[in-house]
Amino acid sequence: METLTVSLGSRSYPIFIGSGISKDAEAFLPFLSMPKVAVVSNSVVAPLYLEKFKGTLRGAGVDVLDIVLPDGEKFKDWQTLNKIFDALVGTSCERSTTLIALGGGVVGDMTGFAAACYQRGAPFIQVPTTLLAQVDSSVGGKTAINHPLGKNMIGAFYQPKVVFADTDYLASLPQRELSAGLAEVIKYGLIRDLPFLDWIEANLSGLLEKDQSLLEHAILRSCVNKAEVVGADEKELGVRAILNLGHTFGHAIETGVGYGKWLHGEAVAAGTVMALELSRKLGWIDPVELERVKDLFQRAGLPTRGPDFGCARYLELMQHDKKVVNAKLRLVLLKKIGEAVLCDDVLLTDVSQAIDACIGCE
Amino acid sequence: METLTVSLGSRSYPIFIGSGISKDAEAFLPFLSMPKVAVVSNSVVAPLYLEKFKGTLRGAGVDVLDIVLPDGEKFKDWQTLNKIFDALVGTSCERSTTLIALGGGVVGDMTGFAAACYQRGAPFIQVPTTLLAQVDSSVGGKTAINHPLGKNMIGAFYQPKVVFADTDYLASLPQRELSAGLAEVIKYGLIRDLPFLDWIEANLSGLLEKDQSLLEHAILRSCVNKAEVVGADEKELGVRAILNLGHTFGHAIETGVGYGKWLHGEAVAAGTVMALELSRKLGWIDPVELERVKDLFQRAGLPTRGPDFGCARYLELMQHDKKVVNAKLRLVLLKKIGEAVLCDDVLLTDVSQAIDACIGCE
Repeated sequence: METLTVSLGSRSYPIFIGSGISKDAEAFLPFLSMPKVAVVSNSVVAPLYLEKFKGTLRGAGVDVLDIVLPDGEKFKDWQTLNKIFDALVGTSCERSTTLIALGGGVVGDMTGFAAACYQRGAPFIQVPTTLLAQVDSSVGGKTAINHPLGKNMIGAFYQPKVVFADTDYLASLPQRELSAGLAEVIKYGLIRDLPFLDWIEANLSGLLEKDQSLLEHAILRSCVNKAEVVGADEKELGVRAILNLGHTFGHAIETGVGYGKWLHGEAVAAGTVMALELSRKLGWIDPVELERVKDLFQRAGLPTRGPDFGCARYLELMQHDKKVVNAKLRLVLLKKIGEAVLCDDVLLTDVSQAIDACIGCE
Repeated sequence: METLTVSLGSRSYPIFIGSGISKDAEAFLPFLSMPKVAVVSNSVVAPLYLEKFKGTLRGAGVDVLDIVLPDGEKFKDWQTLNKIFDALVGTSCERSTTLIALGGGVVGDMTGFAAACYQRGAPFIQVPTTLLAQVDSSVGGKTAINHPLGKNMIGAFYQPKVVFADTDYLASLPQRELSAGLAEVIKYGLIRDLPFLDWIEANLSGLLEKDQSLLEHAILRSCVNKAEVVGADEKELGVRAILNLGHTFGHAIETGVGYGKWLHGEAVAAGTVMALELSRKLGWIDPVELERVKDLFQRAGLPTRGPDFGCARYLELMQHDKKVVNAKLRLVLLKKIGEAVLCDDVLLTDVSQAIDACIGCE
C-alpha cells in the first residue's frame, strides 16, 4: 500500500493506494465522526461491489444507508442530486453522517457536492472505482454537477476526509474506461513530469493489461502530481489551472455531442491534441513532439481528433467555460513537453485553426 | 451612516447601515472584481426598486443583468434556484461576475447559495430590503434552500463581500413583515444583550412607526451582536447555535403549515415562547419573565402560540432539524433573560409539554 497526503492545512487528508484497502473497515473508522454513513453508488458499480462494501462497514458496527444513482455523465444533474438529498433528509441523516462515494468520477463529483451542501456541509470519503477517478477526480476537492449549457458549472470546492484508491476495483473496469483514465495519467506527464511521461510510454502495454503494480505506480505518481498542485492552489486562482490541459476543448466536445456520448477522458485526449496543435502553431513544441503524444494516445486506445460539429460551435461552447476571464479564453498550452503554461492572449483565429486541424476524419 | 465589520480573517467584510446608502454607485465599485453584476430580486421588490438600482450601477459603467424570482418562502427551492443558474450560464456570466441580492431573506439566501455554487464560487453582495434580512439573514454567510421535508437543509456557509442595509427600503415594508423582523431583533436581546432588550421595550412604539433613527439603532445593535457571534464561530461548531433561539420549534411550524404561510419571524416568535416555556419548566427563568417576553412579542404584533397540528408532528419535524446530533435534540434555551445556553440533554417529555402548552387557542 502507498500513502500520500494532500496538504491543505486543517483540510489536509491522506490518499491510500493499493489492492484490497477498502475491504478493511478498521481503516475507515478513524475518519467517521459518528458510526453512520450513506454510501452513494450507481447502477453499474452497485451490483458488483455495494453489498460487500456495506457488509464490511456493518461488520464494524457502522449504520449504513445506501443510495444508488443511475449511471453516466448525463445523470450528473439536479434531478439525480436531489435523489441523494431526498434519501438523506428522508432518513433523518444528521450533519455528522459521512457520505461515501463508491464509484467513478460522476458518483464522486455528485456525492462530494451533495456533502458540501447537505446541512451546509457533511463529511465525505472518496472510494473511487475507476482509473480516472483514482488518478484525478477523487483528489483535490472539485465537486460539481453539469448545467445543460456547460459542464461542471454548478459545484463547490469541498475536500474529502480521505481517499481510498483500491486497485482491486479496476479488475472489472471496461477497457474503454481504462483508456479514458490513462488520458489523465498522460496529462500529468505532459504538464509537469517528463520522467513520468517516459515511464508511461515504456509501460503502456502492461498498464493496458492491468498489471497491478504498474497501475499502482501510475496512480501514485498521478496523485503525487495532483496533490502538489492542489496543495499550492486549492481554489484554482493560479497554477491549478494547468491540470485543465485539454479540458476547455474537451468540455466543448462533451457538451457539444451530449453528455455521456464521449467519456471525459476521451474528450480530454482529443482536447489535449487541440491544445498541443495550438502550442505547435505558436512554435513552442515541434511537430515531432506532437506526433509523439498523438501516437501515445492512439496506443492507449484514445481518440486524437474531435467530432466535427463545426468550429463556430466549439468556440461558442468554450465561451461558457469556467476558464473564461474578462471575456478572454484562458487556455492551458505547453511551453514544451513536460511544462504547461496558462495563456489568456491567444488569438481566436489561431484557436479556430487548431480546432479545424483536429476535427472530423483525417 | 453606521459601519461595522464581520471579522473572519481573509473573508472579513463591512456592513453599512443608513438611509440611502445603496443609491451611491461609488460605494459598490471597490467591491466588484469586474464591472459586471447580476442583480437578483423578486416580483414584489423589483417593481419598487430594481430599475432605480440598475440605473445607479449602469450610471457608473457597470454591466447589469437582472433576474427576478417569484416572491415567497415557498419558492426557496431547486426550481427557482435553477432560474438563477439558467440566467447566469445563458448569458455567459463568468466566475468573477458579482451576484447582488436585492430583496428579503429568501432572495438573500438563494442568491448567496447560487453564488456559492456558480462555477464553484462567485462573489456576492447583500442589499437586504426587509428588516429581517437587515438584522439577521444578510449577515453571517448562511445560505440555503429548503427541502420539502426540512427548512434550509441544502446550502453553504458563504460570506458576502459587503452588506448594504439601506433603511430607505423599509418605508414600503408591510407592517406584518416589520413585526417579523422585530422577532429577530428581540432575539438578540434575549440571548446575549439585556440592555438592548430594555431599549427595545422602551422604543417599540417608535420602531413600529418606522422611526428611521430608531430602526438604524436597532439594526446596528442586532448586527453588532450577530457579527460578534459569527466572528467567534463562523460554521456553527459551538456558540453560533445560540442565534437559533426559537428556530428549531419555528422551523417545525414553517414546515408543518407549509412554507410561506407563517413568516419566518412569526414562527420564530412562537418558537421562542416554546423555548422559554421549557426554560421556565427547568426552573431557569420565572413565570414573570416569560410573561414579559410574551407581552413584548404581542405588542410587536407577533404570535406567541404555534398552530395545533399535534405535538407528535412537531417532534417529528424537529428530528429533521440540523441541530439534531447523535439523535438528540439540541435546543437553545435561556439560562436567564439575556443569556442563552445550548442543551442536548432535555427530556422529550419536557419538550412535549412545552409544545402542548404553547399551541392552539389559549
